[in-house]
Amino acid sequence: MGFTLLHTDGSARAGLLQTGHGEVRTPVFMPVGTQGTVKAVEQRELEEIGAQIILGNTYHLYLRPGTALLEKMGGLHGFMAWRRPVLTDSGGYQVFSLADLRGITEEGVDFTSHLDGSRHRFTPERVVDIQRSLGSDVMMVLDECVAYPAEESYARASNELTLRWAGRCREAFERTRPLYGHPQLLFGIVQGGTFPDLRRRSAEALVAMGFDGYAIGGLSVGEPAPVMEEMTAVCTALLPAGKPRYLMGVGTPENILAAIERGVDMFDCVLPTRNGRNAVVFTRRGRLNLRNARHANDPAPLDAECGCYTCRTFSRAYLRHLFKAGEILALQLATIHNLTEYCRLTAAAREAILAGCFAAWKEEQLRRLRGGDDADSTNDDNDTSGRIA
Amino acid sequence: MGFTLLHTDGSARAGLLQTGHGEVRTPVFMPVGTQGTVKAVEQRELEEIGAQIILGNTYHLYLRPGTALLEKMGGLHGFMAWRRPVLTDSGGYQVFSLADLRGITEEGVDFTSHLDGSRHRFTPERVVDIQRSLGSDVMMVLDECVAYPAEESYARASNELTLRWAGRCREAFERTRPLYGHPQLLFGIVQGGTFPDLRRRSAEALVAMGFDGYAIGGLSVGEPAPVMEEMTAVCTALLPAGKPRYLMGVGTPENILAAIERGVDMFDCVLPTRNGRNAVVFTRRGRLNLRNARHANDPAPLDAECGCYTCRTFSRAYLRHLFKAGEILALQLATIHNLTEYCRLTAAAREAILAGCFAAWKEEQLRRLRGGDDADSTNDDNDTSGRIA
Repeated sequence: MGFTLLHTDGSARAGLLQTGHGEVRTPVFMPVGTQGTVKAVEQRELEEIGAQIILGNTYHLYLRPGTALLEKMGGLHGFMAWRRPVLTDSGGYQVFSLADLRGITEEGVDFTSHLDGSRHRFTPERVVDIQRSLGSDVMMVLDECVAYPAEESYARASNELTLRWAGRCREAFERTRPLYGHPQLLFGIVQGGTFPDLRRRSAEALVAMGFDGYAIGGLSVGEPAPVMEEMTAVCTALLPAGKPRYLMGVGTPENILAAIERGVDMFDCVLPTRNGRNAVVFTRRGRLNLRNARHANDPAPLDAECGCYTCRTFSRAYLRHLFKAGEILALQLATIHNLTEYCRLTAAAREAILAGCFAAWKEEQLRRLRGGDDADSTNDDNDTSGRIA
Repeated sequence: MGFTLLHTDGSARAGLLQTGHGEVRTPVFMPVGTQGTVKAVEQRELEEIGAQIILGNTYHLYLRPGTALLEKMGGLHGFMAWRRPVLTDSGGYQVFSLADLRGITEEGVDFTSHLDGSRHRFTPERVVDIQRSLGSDVMMVLDECVAYPAEESYARASNELTLRWAGRCREAFERTRPLYGHPQLLFGIVQGGTFPDLRRRSAEALVAMGFDGYAIGGLSVGEPAPVMEEMTAVCTALLPAGKPRYLMGVGTPENILAAIERGVDMFDCVLPTRNGRNAVVFTRRGRLNLRNARHANDPAPLDAECGCYTCRTFSRAYLRHLFKAGEILALQLATIHNLTEYCRLTAAAREAILAGCFAAWKEEQLRRLRGGDDADSTNDDNDTSGRIA
């Protein structure tokens, strides 16, 4: 178990993360499967797409279906019939963004479920126990994700609390054991807002505790891209080369390329799935808005270079029709394509790093991405008919 | 091209319909693909399910995407990338049920689109032209589907108008040619409401005109099942043995078995797709409502005897979770299963007919279907959370 750094190219890294459900080749993009499903795609399609590892959300799965059923079904893998690795967050981010938050104390966070108003408490120890029930291959510590912008005094106090919680998670992890026979890893989460000193304090303290990997949290929450990139570089400079780095919730293809250049190995983001469901698709040549009238009669695939089921089979004209008609198949096909493109991007980055040509390859990708972007253009007719999701 | 009757068992029939996109083994169930997609399933999945032929709706496809784009894309087959046969209705049923109907005349029907209020006219000649543009393997004549109950005087006059329209469709069919190089068939539609004399008049007149096959329309519109079965038998008794019979819009597994027994070869119905999206699944042991609390912790598949992707892979507990969480995957997996079960039922009926044991096989199916039905039971908690469609 654990991470092997295979090659570096500048700060960019190609590695291998070994888990209880097989290897993950990094850099890697992890599709988001919040409620035990990556929205609108089947598990067998995720394998076909090339998804090596998916993300589950502890907050959602704890509330529904709950840990009792998950334990009965052999954890999240058994419940959702997913054979490859799973990473779960700690639930903290969702508590702060979805639940009716009732209070943060030294002990943990009290909150009211967004589903039924029931009251709950997440402590560092509790989120480890829940993730033992989930059986995730990679577990995350409980943290507070500070909003942007934040006062430095608030960010500093929050940062120290998050570090104390990380220590308690580390201890709880040592005290407990996996439930399903496969090993689990625990990652720490670097916080510190947009304050370089706080980021350094967080990274150094977590490294001193010793985790199987390190996430960079609290970014992609509204700060400008250059700030995100600076904070990322501040963190990766201090994190040990022999452990994986995971930039949480990031981002666009451009964001991901910038972070790989700064030494990040793992990514998750709802953009490919959520944007897909809203008729925006990612191609090598930029984004396309399938509601745009210029696609109405276009027999071309979304991306002529893409080998996914959608691009092998269907035209832009057909996909646009499905979106305008409000058909579920639109969501399926756009999601398949977008996830394929995200997985291709990180896999191709890995090949470029292994070949020692990451910088040139990245510039070529960015040049192409600037080519065909129409995602910001308005719809042809402001037509929201058939809007599905 | 055309139909070969292979075997009869009582009035039940096993046959082979040859089309421009290959053979269809009858009895057959045709999934409904109203807008150029069978809702929530991919085209490759339809093939996997065993769908031999699907149905498209002329009214919907004429309004959106329209015949110009369909012609550019090589007809409905090219547009939706479907390689197997397609049957299209004439649009009449949808005009009468969906559009703002502005008037029926000898010439045809005038209506206002449910999409944008635009005005249109369907004539017998026009619907043949549209179905030439669609390139459907089996085209249907324009008819009026009389509501139930109806006055006999109204049904009689409507029946005569439908027969005159059928004659005009037949002539238009002869005058026009396929656009895409594959042959097209034209079916007549027997109407006559629930009046045996009118049904006989309709069947005999259509047979005299000579069509490639005969549909039985205007049933499953609210009449009791015994009336549906009686009318079906009245029609099939008069239709030529060497041509296929298609009972439009029918129905439950029990309805389909009763109609096969009375000599029907082809079926279409939205039940497996629509019910699937509403969490009701069809199994060999009857219907299951996946919102029912008794499935909450059940690790069993929907139907242990079923070989579909859903049943091979997922538990009732997982499917129930997906429905309660409002996840799109719920719709996909329930639809895959229900269509598999419908296609299995008709394929198994065919085997029983070829083996000469249809009556005994049918009784066994009905006995099993009475076993596990909980579709009429109320939800465990009247919970409509997460309702998706």
